[in-house]
Amino acid sequence: MCNKNFIYLLNDALENNHLQRALDAVHTFKAADLADILTQLPLSSSQILLVNLPARAYVFSYLKPQQQVKFAQILPWATLAEIIGEMPSDKRADIFKQLDLEQQNVLLPALAQAKREDIRQLAAYVEGTAGAIMSSEYATLKPNMTVLDAIKMLRLEAPATETIYIAYVLDEMRKLLGVISLKQLILGQEQDQVDQLMTTDLISADVDTDQDDVAKTIARYDLLALPIVDAQGVMVGIVTYDDAMDVASEEATEDFLRVGAVNASSKLSLKNASIFVLYQKRVFWLVILVFGSLLSGIGIAHFEDIIAANIVLVFFLPLLVGSGGNAGSQSATLMVRALATGDVQFKDWFYLLGRESLVALCLGVTMAIAVSVLGYFRGDAMVALVLALSMLGIVLLGCLIGMSLPFILNRFKLDPASASAPLVTSICDATGVIVYLFIASQLLTGIAP
Amino acid sequence: MCNKNFIYLLNDALENNHLQRALDAVHTFKAADLADILTQLPLSSSQILLVNLPARAYVFSYLKPQQQVKFAQILPWATLAEIIGEMPSDKRADIFKQLDLEQQNVLLPALAQAKREDIRQLAAYVEGTAGAIMSSEYATLKPNMTVLDAIKMLRLEAPATETIYIAYVLDEMRKLLGVISLKQLILGQEQDQVDQLMTTDLISADVDTDQDDVAKTIARYDLLALPIVDAQGVMVGIVTYDDAMDVASEEATEDFLRVGAVNASSKLSLKNASIFVLYQKRVFWLVILVFGSLLSGIGIAHFEDIIAANIVLVFFLPLLVGSGGNAGSQSATLMVRALATGDVQFKDWFYLLGRESLVALCLGVTMAIAVSVLGYFRGDAMVALVLALSMLGIVLLGCLIGMSLPFILNRFKLDPASASAPLVTSICDATGVIVYLFIASQLLTGIAP
Repeated sequence: MCNKNFIYLLNDALENNHLQRALDAVHTFKAADLADILTQLPLSSSQILLVNLPARAYVFSYLKPQQQVKFAQILPWATLAEIIGEMPSDKRADIFKQLDLEQQNVLLPALAQAKREDIRQLAAYVEGTAGAIMSSEYATLKPNMTVLDAIKMLRLEAPATETIYIAYVLDEMRKLLGVISLKQLILGQEQDQVDQLMTTDLISADVDTDQDDVAKTIARYDLLALPIVDAQGVMVGIVTYDDAMDVASEEATEDFLRVGAVNASSKLSLKNASIFVLYQKRVFWLVILVFGSLLSGIGIAHFEDIIAANIVLVFFLPLLVGSGGNAGSQSATLMVRALATGDVQFKDWFYLLGRESLVALCLGVTMAIAVSVLGYFRGDAMVALVLALSMLGIVLLGCLIGMSLPFILNRFKLDPASASAPLVTSICDATGVIVYLFIASQLLTGIAP
Repeated sequence: MCNKNFIYLLNDALENNHLQRALDAVHTFKAADLADILTQLPLSSSQILLVNLPARAYVFSYLKPQQQVKFAQILPWATLAEIIGEMPSDKRADIFKQLDLEQQNVLLPALAQAKREDIRQLAAYVEGTAGAIMSSEYATLKPNMTVLDAIKMLRLEAPATETIYIAYVLDEMRKLLGVISLKQLILGQEQDQVDQLMTTDLISADVDTDQDDVAKTIARYDLLALPIVDAQGVMVGIVTYDDAMDVASEEATEDFLRVGAVNASSKLSLKNASIFVLYQKRVFWLVILVFGSLLSGIGIAHFEDIIAANIVLVFFLPLLVGSGGNAGSQSATLMVRALATGDVQFKDWFYLLGRESLVALCLGVTMAIAVSVLGYFRGDAMVALVLALSMLGIVLLGCLIGMSLPFILNRFKLDPASASAPLVTSICDATGVIVYLFIASQLLTGIAP
């Protein structure tokens, strides 16, 4: 939404100390847009703008982690401590974890006692769990409050909570008794008690729950926020729907990249990552897959004589091997996504294996007919037969490998997505070479020139 | 969450007319879980259960489209009309669109006038736009109302709105003046006017906006709901955050499947789709890719003599060609995802092309060194040189093709994801065959036996 000219003028105003003019020019912008503008301005100007923005902590929390660290290095310590102190607790813990030990040690004493405790606790949870993404700012109510008192309480708590639309009803030990929405309160009678109106069949998650499962639960039940409890049932935080959206988008990106054989996390920015990082994220899979291709090469070496005698076989090699790889990667892709969205579970394996065999048979027959026509025109009836049989076998095997691998990885608690396209393709390729050349060696040697 | 034994007992209770017992057994379940149970029960039992559930319309809206249609075919018309009448307006329009013309004509007269109008309007919007996913049930306020009156108004409107946490302030022509949250109202003074408190710098979308862009806007600004306006600026609906989550998940699935060369929409269920549908979704790309592989075959046929003279070349064929395809599909995957998440735009092409060339050069050199060592041991120094040069050229070309194709498709308003892995791989494969065998023919013919 911001073109270069606007950024140019804004930078000009900031460099010439026309701070008020700059602030006026951006005062209708939303936090996400302001964060964008900060990344487009030169660092000196963006520092001035950030420090003077009314909602600076909120804008700061919209910046990407690497940009937050960049600012953390140049901002005066007192200002940084102020901004970090004003941030939502989950975002505060995130930036804290990005800082190096020395920076953390300077920063901690500058924060209020309560925030110091909070940051230490939140930063201690394992990355990728509910604990690591939860916020400790949520509204709480007591079960015996009246609706009138509850609404008054929420008004008081509002500045220090992520949302006042959902409040959690806790007992003296901070154990979770129920959840009540502002809607339920507004629709209730002023003298009703909170525990008469609250929902007690509540959905919560443990601090150790995988963040992906937290996001799925929020999406499944259309929740505004999910309460997080520790092993003793004591409430320790909430994960809100907007955090769940971010997690879902990150996970989708990671799955997607893995299919493309990129060993990257969703935090990788194609535009800002260094050349070396991009190289590093990609070279791993490329080299691994070389070994996969070597298997195909070894298969070929084993049958070198039959190839030398029937050079026409090489013409069809990419086609047959490629088709097996493609069919296998289709199966794997469908399965990985179905496992990720929860459409299928491990117990469905046998049922799905049966279905997949039928689908693979249909696909294999179609492809076999197509390739045998090509083979007849390029070679002869015998070549056509070799091609048809090979294609059928290759597609069948490819589909079954592609379908089974994600399940097997899932069974061994590995991420099924890491087994997807690249790995499946190279296994199917090698299988394809062997099937093709074995069938050829059985049927063709007799008629070799 | 429901094991087979529970379903068995529930079915038993329903079949033996112990309806109350069945309802008691599920009364703490959430709508999403009840929808799951309905799909696991035999149709006759699930029909009885559905009709008698207190929140049946809400549960019904959680069913997948094909299941809704299944129920629509067996439920008595009057009951179906009642359930559909009680559903949220966006879900009601969705199921209406799934029914055939005859069913629509029986259903419409059974609905109240206002709902009939509403369903006709919502069903008229093009699939995939904001109009097609929006709901017409939102809370509205007048600008000159006091906070006290506004909260009373929201209490009255609550049963007929998707959310009362966000209310839209409209003028007499229903043009959108501002938006006010229940939080702003609660924190305001009772005698304040709505137009003093409301936010006027509001974010809205046009009815024709792509649903994916709507979901992105909601995620970017962490909105609870996005107001949708028509060409005249008149408010016509809202899209809520939970609908945005569904859209984002659908789009991620579609992109993901496309990378795996499956021509499928996100609505495809691996478990429930018929064998024929699965066949149909996959055969298209498999056959298309055969033609891609044929290009490689033609390249091979052109250089048949050099292969026959140096059969060792075939050993390295899968490795070299595969590496080009892998490198290209990495580039394409990174680019498709970066375009989808908005990390890069078309204007970044030249900048990214430069960076990609550098990354590709590093990758190519690494791979060239690796493969030349293999070549030296398997063949001789000359073979090693051929392999190193080919690998470098193939990886460079692969990366540049992989990077450019999504951009070009994007430029021509085609979905960049459809150009991803499968297509890129077969183009890179064919390029790889030609580069490899051309270099071999230049350097090796002289020393052929």
